[in-house]
Amino acid sequence: MREGLVAAAFRLFLERGYERTTVDDIVALAGVGRRSFFRYFPSKEDVVFPDHERCLTDMTAYLAGSPAGTEPVRRVCDAARLVLRMYAENPSFSVQRYRLTKQVPGLRAYELSVVWRYERALAAYLRGRFAGSADGTLRADVIAAAVVAAHNNALRSWLRSGGTADANTTADHALGCVQSAFGEPQAPPRGLDSGDLVIVVARRDAPLWRVVREVESALGRD
Amino acid sequence: MREGLVAAAFRLFLERGYERTTVDDIVALAGVGRRSFFRYFPSKEDVVFPDHERCLTDMTAYLAGSPAGTEPVRRVCDAARLVLRMYAENPSFSVQRYRLTKQVPGLRAYELSVVWRYERALAAYLRGRFAGSADGTLRADVIAAAVVAAHNNALRSWLRSGGTADANTTADHALGCVQSAFGEPQAPPRGLDSGDLVIVVARRDAPLWRVVREVESALGRD
Repeated sequence: MREGLVAAAFRLFLERGYERTTVDDIVALAGVGRRSFFRYFPSKEDVVFPDHERCLTDMTAYLAGSPAGTEPVRRVCDAARLVLRMYAENPSFSVQRYRLTKQVPGLRAYELSVVWRYERALAAYLRGRFAGSADGTLRADVIAAAVVAAHNNALRSWLRSGGTADANTTADHALGCVQSAFGEPQAPPRGLDSGDLVIVVARRDAPLWRVVREVESALGRD
Repeated sequence: MREGLVAAAFRLFLERGYERTTVDDIVALAGVGRRSFFRYFPSKEDVVFPDHERCLTDMTAYLAGSPAGTEPVRRVCDAARLVLRMYAENPSFSVQRYRLTKQVPGLRAYELSVVWRYERALAAYLRGRFAGSADGTLRADVIAAAVVAAHNNALRSWLRSGGTADANTTADHALGCVQSAFGEPQAPPRGLDSGDLVIVVARRDAPLWRVVREVESALGRD
């Protein structure tokens, strides 16, 4: 019945617009009563985002169940992926909703309040992990906001691709940016010892030939 | 008249609560007509945040007027201080409003939409500054979110102090955290500007031509 209500609602939103669709129209098309609608959805806005409550619950449980010693920034990045996965599970629905949300200011406001709740869930976990350390609350808030912004950047890219891009690759890239700014340095990739890396520092105005000679020398090829 | 309306509104909000105060009550106490109210404020919510529109305009102008060569992360941090200054100009009003906003869900939602507009103004400036560089949009979005989160953390500390703490010191500390994560390093060693240095990291087994191409690109000679 829940899925039937969502399907009926979206068919009407697309046909006649969100504002001109009433809850009565939705229940008439779905063939159920008003009480059934409100048993699942507190308001018309909620039917547009039917999975966020479940996803918020999943995210909170995921964070609460973090094994001891988990790197906290990596953990919140992985928690954010749960949201992206929810979108990616149903690309055509997500893309339709994205177009709808851009057109209806009330839905934009609703979405902001949902995003805020995800951000607070991430920040609450980080505040716990950073408790007692200098600027723990500040760092928790800043990192949670950065993770949400990176996630949303990836999500928008994916939605703009019409849901055809690879959501995981997009997310890896965006969240990697946050992890490199705030996370603990990761162990170097397998098979690459830091002794295998060469670092060359040069003045910007140095002649190129001199820099190349430096590089050759550092690489042991001179 | 505008100030009179704000004062009348807040007196009623504190006396009988936000929800139970109507625009009619406010204009009656202020001794003006309904049309005067709506000339200044599109809705009852707007009278709670009478200065955000002006502050958003100021911030946008401040960013648009950035001198060439300004370090962009420092600039958005300074732009965020304009918002804190607006709050700090009137501590008792700001603290009253903070308490009110925490109690009324509709005002929380309104505040989120205002914060979102500040964040988009900062991100738009950074997107312009990072245009053409790798991951420019992503970095712009992440840094704008981090600046807003740091600002809000400082603002909340200040509001919780009842407006008695030094707002600038709190902001310096919080925004400093963002600048050290994302900004260009400040105060380079004497006689050598950090912009003059190029650092290339390569795998020891990388082909020489690839390293040279990296160096050329880093030196801006490609």
